[in-house]
Amino acid sequence: MNEKVYLNGRYFERNDALVSVFDRGFLFSDAVYEVTAVIKGFLVDWESHFNRLKNSLKEINLVLEIQEKEMFSIQKKLIDVNKVDEGLVYIQITRGVGHRDFNFEEDHFEPTVVIFTQEKKILNTIRAEKGIKIVTFDEMRWKRRDIKTTQLLASSLAKTEASRRGKDDCWFVEDGFITEGSSSNAFIINDNGEVITRELSPKLLGGITRSSVLEFCEKNNLNFKEGCFTKTEAKNALEAFITSSTNFVVPVIEMDGHKIGKGVVGRYVKEIQKLYLNEIQKRLS
Amino acid sequence: MNEKVYLNGRYFERNDALVSVFDRGFLFSDAVYEVTAVIKGFLVDWESHFNRLKNSLKEINLVLEIQEKEMFSIQKKLIDVNKVDEGLVYIQITRGVGHRDFNFEEDHFEPTVVIFTQEKKILNTIRAEKGIKIVTFDEMRWKRRDIKTTQLLASSLAKTEASRRGKDDCWFVEDGFITEGSSSNAFIINDNGEVITRELSPKLLGGITRSSVLEFCEKNNLNFKEGCFTKTEAKNALEAFITSSTNFVVPVIEMDGHKIGKGVVGRYVKEIQKLYLNEIQKRLS
Repeated sequence: MNEKVYLNGRYFERNDALVSVFDRGFLFSDAVYEVTAVIKGFLVDWESHFNRLKNSLKEINLVLEIQEKEMFSIQKKLIDVNKVDEGLVYIQITRGVGHRDFNFEEDHFEPTVVIFTQEKKILNTIRAEKGIKIVTFDEMRWKRRDIKTTQLLASSLAKTEASRRGKDDCWFVEDGFITEGSSSNAFIINDNGEVITRELSPKLLGGITRSSVLEFCEKNNLNFKEGCFTKTEAKNALEAFITSSTNFVVPVIEMDGHKIGKGVVGRYVKEIQKLYLNEIQKRLS
Repeated sequence: MNEKVYLNGRYFERNDALVSVFDRGFLFSDAVYEVTAVIKGFLVDWESHFNRLKNSLKEINLVLEIQEKEMFSIQKKLIDVNKVDEGLVYIQITRGVGHRDFNFEEDHFEPTVVIFTQEKKILNTIRAEKGIKIVTFDEMRWKRRDIKTTQLLASSLAKTEASRRGKDDCWFVEDGFITEGSSSNAFIINDNGEVITRELSPKLLGGITRSSVLEFCEKNNLNFKEGCFTKTEAKNALEAFITSSTNFVVPVIEMDGHKIGKGVVGRYVKEIQKLYLNEIQKRLS
């Protein structure tokens, strides 16, 4: 793989992009990140990702003057030199390198900025066409899932366990209610044709695709509401789906071995997929 | 600093110990670690740390045949070349470098092993002599605190916030009960002179020093029990303390602005400190 990776102002070959073992991103997961989809070489909803990144930095008290235009042009350059037609750009910012100490007030840090690209099929995927099967697991993650940090081990273990069970992904359940997926937001459609997804709170990440989907529902007179739903409500839903920045809208056709609806991709989800794709075409930047 | 760092079979200068930005330890906190105290160049309770490390690896399904003797001799070599009289040895093992994917079943990984030393005053510290002041915060960490992973951002933010408030550390509270400190176990001594610390469960790390202290209490006919205690019980305790591998036994004299006991180091804690130091002298390896 002859890819370039951006690291702290320079471009490296993939194998030469190295950080110190004393980087707080490595020792303390003291880092936040963003993943932005690339379609035909264009970034999808970059401004929203940038704003969320700034918010994540603020929430963990990581002071870094990042400029939207500069970050944008680095990403565009990587997309260009790495010839990414469809895939993603990943940005991670850590507090930087220092003496290992939980208390980071005692040291001065220069944040570490890493940006790389990844090829990934996003449009016309089998999962978008055929739907995915999920399992549910107890919510094990920390309590500030609204901040996009690299504390991702719980999600990673859960997604891997789902795969071992022959399923595609998982949803987390806390206090009886679905929070979200391992790296996606969870939606159901009830018998009244209402699109339901959990309201924003520290319990889940405010997905960029989640927000776009709600916006497009509103614009196209599809009923939706933001609120909690249980595992039982999900099982008995007419349809279900997930959203994420690099999966867009993907139907969920089975949960914990139970078919959702007829166990095939339903008309509401197809309609939302169509709406989403139409709308984001207009937004590519 | 002219220190050596061990990384994947080789010894590097501190500034040259570098890992790939595609290491899962960096991207997903897919890593576990151990910190072992060094006193007069000797490791304190190394075998217990090694066993806990093996258990952490098992819990996150990270397969690595690590040999106790080999890890021990690397640590001894670092202690020697870095001339560590008093301080610590830090070991971190990550799942390794690969394609970025939450699901780690799809790739093959060579685990990354990092070992470094750090000078730190452990014996005769001001905090052990004078005690520390703590604040309490809501428990924000993930639900498997019994596994020693690098998902440490919540603890790091909490300890830093305590420091900003002019305090030394914090204890976490969940469902009304103290779980543990930011990187230590929490103990109180009640009016009957009973030493109380929370029983082991996924809610807290099974501290090596915690376990030694309980063992030494038993051996020396000091009453103790393992069980939950509330913030109010802690405030009204006769005495309180924390244990950790590189702090040993440190008195807590204030919590959330309230004096604990008389607000000075009490006789029980002094006794336990003495017991602990006497006993571990015999164990240095």
